[in-house]
Amino acid sequence: MSFLPKSIEKLIENFLKLPGIGPKTASRLTFYMLHMPDAELENFGQSIANLKKKVVYCTICCNIAESNPCPICNDVTRDNSIVCVVENPIEVLSIEKTGKFKGVYHVLHGAINPLNNIGPDELKIDELLKRIALGKIRKIILATIPNMEGEATAMYLKREILNLKSKNGKLPRLIVSRLAHGLPVGADLEYADEVTLSRALEGRREY
Amino acid sequence: MSFLPKSIEKLIENFLKLPGIGPKTASRLTFYMLHMPDAELENFGQSIANLKKKVVYCTICCNIAESNPCPICNDVTRDNSIVCVVENPIEVLSIEKTGKFKGVYHVLHGAINPLNNIGPDELKIDELLKRIALGKIRKIILATIPNMEGEATAMYLKREILNLKSKNGKLPRLIVSRLAHGLPVGADLEYADEVTLSRALEGRREY
Repeated sequence: MSFLPKSIEKLIENFLKLPGIGPKTASRLTFYMLHMPDAELENFGQSIANLKKKVVYCTICCNIAESNPCPICNDVTRDNSIVCVVENPIEVLSIEKTGKFKGVYHVLHGAINPLNNIGPDELKIDELLKRIALGKIRKIILATIPNMEGEATAMYLKREILNLKSKNGKLPRLIVSRLAHGLPVGADLEYADEVTLSRALEGRREY
Repeated sequence: MSFLPKSIEKLIENFLKLPGIGPKTASRLTFYMLHMPDAELENFGQSIANLKKKVVYCTICCNIAESNPCPICNDVTRDNSIVCVVENPIEVLSIEKTGKFKGVYHVLHGAINPLNNIGPDELKIDELLKRIALGKIRKIILATIPNMEGEATAMYLKREILNLKSKNGKLPRLIVSRLAHGLPVGADLEYADEVTLSRALEGRREY
């Protein structure tokens, strides 16, 4: 589309790099932004260019933050004997939004994926095992994503945690759990897949 | 979500200003961008901040461009006696992508919408009428969007063009047309709405 101004073409190309944004959405967003005031565009541009400049990794939970330790690890009202293990920082956001979890997190930054050459060493698993070895953690919630990679990671973590316990007899009793599988709230039974439905049956609770 | 780094919150807020991007997509895009290299983020940010800096309006067709007249109006291989009237610059892009139109454009920058206080004076209608008054245009294709506002704009334009002709007897014969209504290619008849289907019947062509 050589007749388009270069600045528009460039922004369309940049939008195309984002996940879930195809050529139509990329041009729709770009042309929409032509109507935004200059100051807003400047602010938007700065917020992208500066996105990572002040972001550090928390040395305790490996989550991204502005300070180290991060606000969650630093929060004395939170129970740091309960650790929820997630794959990515965005999942911390999702769990925080529920408002139901008062423990702390550990972010692995991915899941075991042999096809993409991601083994346990590429993830923050050592950091988690070292945290557990300190002996203050009593509950581990494995909240990796329920797909092939997340399940493999959860299984690997469970084995490593048990190994750690058998090597170090002084560690306190540690409860390792996994998030429940079942029907999403509000979903129709007829649309649930067989695996989810059989897990929902297995995991049924007295009512 | 006070635990999030401010730079991340700020980018999420900025994404939320875009059409069709809700809170989930905004955070998904932002967290995705944390994995992008610094140089790419810098480039992306610059392309937003500089989006409008080199963009000018073509004084002939009112489209956005980097030069005035724009590359389309300046292109001697295009037939400037055929003018396709569209609401927005993005529709020029859509029509150019078909590769079927060899005339030139006129961009109104909106449609008549009394509810939003957009009357004919807010649009580039005067500019169009002045172009027609020069007497070189022989065909006008009204390609405003087939919704309430676009139809009203097309009707208004048709009346104004006829007025112009009756006032100025020296103008050449001018054919005013509107884009065809009908079934989208590949669509099922059962999913077409009644209005589209009746227009498709009215506009049927010998086969």
